[in-house]
Amino acid sequence: MADPATISPATLLKDELDIVIPTIRNLDFLEMWRPFFQPYHLIIVQDGDPSKAIKVPEGFDYELYNRNDINRILGPKASCISFKDSACRCFGYMVSKKKYIYTIDDDCFVAKDPSGKDINALEQHIKNLLSPSTPFFFNTLYDPYRAGADFVRGYPFSLREGVPTAVSHGLWLNIPDYDAPTQLVKPLERNTRYVDAVMTIPKGTLFPMCGMNLAFDRELIGPAMYFGLMGDGQPIGRYDDMWAGWCTKVICDHLGWGVKTGLPYIWHSKGSNPFVNLRKEYKGIYWQEELIPFFQSVTLPKDCTSVQKCYIEIANQVKAKLGKVDDYFNKLADAMVTWIEAWDELNPSGASKSSDLPNGPSK
Amino acid sequence: MADPATISPATLLKDELDIVIPTIRNLDFLEMWRPFFQPYHLIIVQDGDPSKAIKVPEGFDYELYNRNDINRILGPKASCISFKDSACRCFGYMVSKKKYIYTIDDDCFVAKDPSGKDINALEQHIKNLLSPSTPFFFNTLYDPYRAGADFVRGYPFSLREGVPTAVSHGLWLNIPDYDAPTQLVKPLERNTRYVDAVMTIPKGTLFPMCGMNLAFDRELIGPAMYFGLMGDGQPIGRYDDMWAGWCTKVICDHLGWGVKTGLPYIWHSKGSNPFVNLRKEYKGIYWQEELIPFFQSVTLPKDCTSVQKCYIEIANQVKAKLGKVDDYFNKLADAMVTWIEAWDELNPSGASKSSDLPNGPSK
Repeated sequence: MADPATISPATLLKDELDIVIPTIRNLDFLEMWRPFFQPYHLIIVQDGDPSKAIKVPEGFDYELYNRNDINRILGPKASCISFKDSACRCFGYMVSKKKYIYTIDDDCFVAKDPSGKDINALEQHIKNLLSPSTPFFFNTLYDPYRAGADFVRGYPFSLREGVPTAVSHGLWLNIPDYDAPTQLVKPLERNTRYVDAVMTIPKGTLFPMCGMNLAFDRELIGPAMYFGLMGDGQPIGRYDDMWAGWCTKVICDHLGWGVKTGLPYIWHSKGSNPFVNLRKEYKGIYWQEELIPFFQSVTLPKDCTSVQKCYIEIANQVKAKLGKVDDYFNKLADAMVTWIEAWDELNPSGASKSSDLPNGPSK
Repeated sequence: MADPATISPATLLKDELDIVIPTIRNLDFLEMWRPFFQPYHLIIVQDGDPSKAIKVPEGFDYELYNRNDINRILGPKASCISFKDSACRCFGYMVSKKKYIYTIDDDCFVAKDPSGKDINALEQHIKNLLSPSTPFFFNTLYDPYRAGADFVRGYPFSLREGVPTAVSHGLWLNIPDYDAPTQLVKPLERNTRYVDAVMTIPKGTLFPMCGMNLAFDRELIGPAMYFGLMGDGQPIGRYDDMWAGWCTKVICDHLGWGVKTGLPYIWHSKGSNPFVNLRKEYKGIYWQEELIPFFQSVTLPKDCTSVQKCYIEIANQVKAKLGKVDDYFNKLADAMVTWIEAWDELNPSGASKSSDLPNGPSK
């Protein structure tokens, strides 16, 4: 097959990809990423107090948005963007004008592969996104498009072309992405297992998408990457990326696109406070038992031919079927619609390659 | 979670597992496996000329069946067992009286893990089979029951108990399990990537099951592990394990059991002749394009509550829907029914723990 391992650094999309970082602190963590991130444009979304100045190390090309910017740019529609929660990062997806997004948390550092070499996480995500996915049949040797791999005996030839990859979900060494109960039960557990694999998550299968180390094709799936209503004034937190992942997977399945998970790893430096997390999560842990069957049974009609149409349809079904679980889901369904309206306003049809924002960023 | 990594050698099921080996030659390859296999009972199914003597290294406990034995034991029902094809191995599953089966090809040797240590493939298969599967939701850190792993944030708690594991599908270093066209195109490709993962293949997803390095819970899924009509007198070969895998996966999905793939690796020493393989495969490559949609759309009625009932139902659907693809599938459907009749004859209800065979083996 075409071998994405041979993609040269020159083709690594530096003019076609934005790195989105939500933060509440100075971005010293970028020093470690400098060799890999410096060629790219950063979109920093400041979470919390807008009067606080966020320092960005010299030499990075960036734009920074705080809450005041979000309110100014979106007006009343700013209500769909979470406050005091890293879910605010999805504002960065909306204002980007690039084809691809990579988003990373500011407590994530460069990991090493088993040979001791620094892992260029972004390069691996780009390889994942530029090679097809295989959601319709499982390949036991994992990603058939990697160097040294292929489709195994018994893999239908008609499916070997694959489908476009919409999402590349990367993993974490050191602190695993556990929920609060598991953090409490296993405070010392560290992820030390480097699994040298990338795979497509099969069609019809949901997964827990973590926003810590995530890349996607914004032109394909961007409008589905809404991180919901979390944080200040909301009854839950830490389900922002999960919500985005469930909506995204259902839409990718419907539209015939792929979602990959596995490599690259980042080094997740510190676990968040499990007691705080438990407060944020406990309703989500309970509601999730209703959400998963809901998303497993969502069907999208054939006339949902765009991500926006799919997303609005899901919002309608959320209101109809989850509104009775808690009134929060009525608010969330409304915010989903607002998100799409705001997305379309900032991304008028055919203008996705334009570099003019309706309103400029702070910087 | 319960940690199967701590299973002690003493619990490695030596009285509950048979190793089934189809062969046409002396079993010198067992020398390398002696440290791992010697405590177990072997069932050797001799493929081809029954007058040829097969030498088994000293010290192994085994029974050996050749074609004459198969004909004598099964009578007219012996027609369901392939001749001059390693598909004959499924006869060994039928005459075993143990709960678990491990089957391995005689060109498979002990592989080494990245630290250089010999891999005890059987031990890993047993760990896979004794720990639950998670077919209803994807866990991004792979098998949550392995030491150092768990369910990640966003994994529904109601699904963390898992379901019984019916099948453990192991992989191959060195010569990958490619079809003839891929062998011809990539004669020098070797699998050198050790992926340190075990995962459940999600419900609703089919996969290409290879019989080279395979373990299963015979009491759970044995009657579905029929390797079809291949080899002498049949229009195809090299689809025996694939057929078994598709039937098995559909039945596991229906009955709520899991199928795992990944570790352990064996060292596959030599590729079979791609020109011969092409002759065996070419109809299968073509038919497969009909078979996959067929298996993807098979639904089993609720009253199919046993593997046998499920299997007979699939045989009926094969005849009804694939008979028109080629008359071979009518013969295969009949053989599937014969297989179940023979299975039930050799394994009368409740007698699966008995050690009395209706007719003894050669040895």
